[in-house]
Amino acid sequence: MTLHFEDLDTETRFGLGEATLTEAEIVAFAERFDPHPFHVDPDVGDESPFGGLVASGLHTYCVCNRLATDALFGDLAFLGGMGVEELRWHRPVRPGDTLTGTTGVMELRASESHPERGYADLYTEGVNGDGDRVVSWTALGMVRRRDAAVEEPRGATAGSDSRK
Amino acid sequence: MTLHFEDLDTETRFGLGEATLTEAEIVAFAERFDPHPFHVDPDVGDESPFGGLVASGLHTYCVCNRLATDALFGDLAFLGGMGVEELRWHRPVRPGDTLTGTTGVMELRASESHPERGYADLYTEGVNGDGDRVVSWTALGMVRRRDAAVEEPRGATAGSDSRK
Repeated sequence: MTLHFEDLDTETRFGLGEATLTEAEIVAFAERFDPHPFHVDPDVGDESPFGGLVASGLHTYCVCNRLATDALFGDLAFLGGMGVEELRWHRPVRPGDTLTGTTGVMELRASESHPERGYADLYTEGVNGDGDRVVSWTALGMVRRRDAAVEEPRGATAGSDSRK
Repeated sequence: MTLHFEDLDTETRFGLGEATLTEAEIVAFAERFDPHPFHVDPDVGDESPFGGLVASGLHTYCVCNRLATDALFGDLAFLGGMGVEELRWHRPVRPGDTLTGTTGVMELRASESHPERGYADLYTEGVNGDGDRVVSWTALGMVRRRDAAVEEPRGATAGSDSRK
């Protein structure tokens, strides 16, 4: 069954699966998207402010976004995201660290200007093997309403609804 | 010459280079990190709220982060990022779109608790070939001060400075 806006609630938290970041993955991601020495050079050592190689924060965010997508979106009538609030990197992630975490809906608002659309604020946090939080963010998502009488316009964005 | 906190100013904007997102890259990124049908299925067509395949917003962000890194960070004594404010996706990015944009420092604050460290808020926006903005965000970066008398502690995070 496909989940629509009306099926979501702000009480349920979903546990994430696990992902382990290898040194090769950390370096490959950062070479492509975030090539600072402390993300791409396994021998950076004491020249790194982190005392060695750490994953790009973008990499940590992307890996945990995949875990959240698997946990939450499988059958959701998701219309896309408008953006992210308060993406934060709390602790470094190092090669071999295994991440997991939780995700869930924090706030739901029906659109005033688009009757086929609802807004869902989705909070996700990733933790390391010690249970310490390493990344967190709130995604601003759009979800189709079940009773939508009108088709969603193409290239949907926030449209005329204001953020708050 | 390595640029330190004292060398930054809030007046200068830097132009980004260009990057073109191919269909294969869009699909490969999304399969790994953001596997929604409208990011991974080239034949999604009318089932997509965007009327076809569009890049994951995370992909657009990562590609433009690389362009910003190349433009700004080459010789910067960068100590890492604490997070991102107001990451926004303004328009869909489709296969073949070429992105460019601008980046620059919006605000600078010396740390009160870490004399070797300064905070730099870095605003970046990516635009498509029509000059329309597709993504924007403000990165919360840490930069070493030239007159730093003390070594930065390992595993540096925001420490005891509050965000505002």
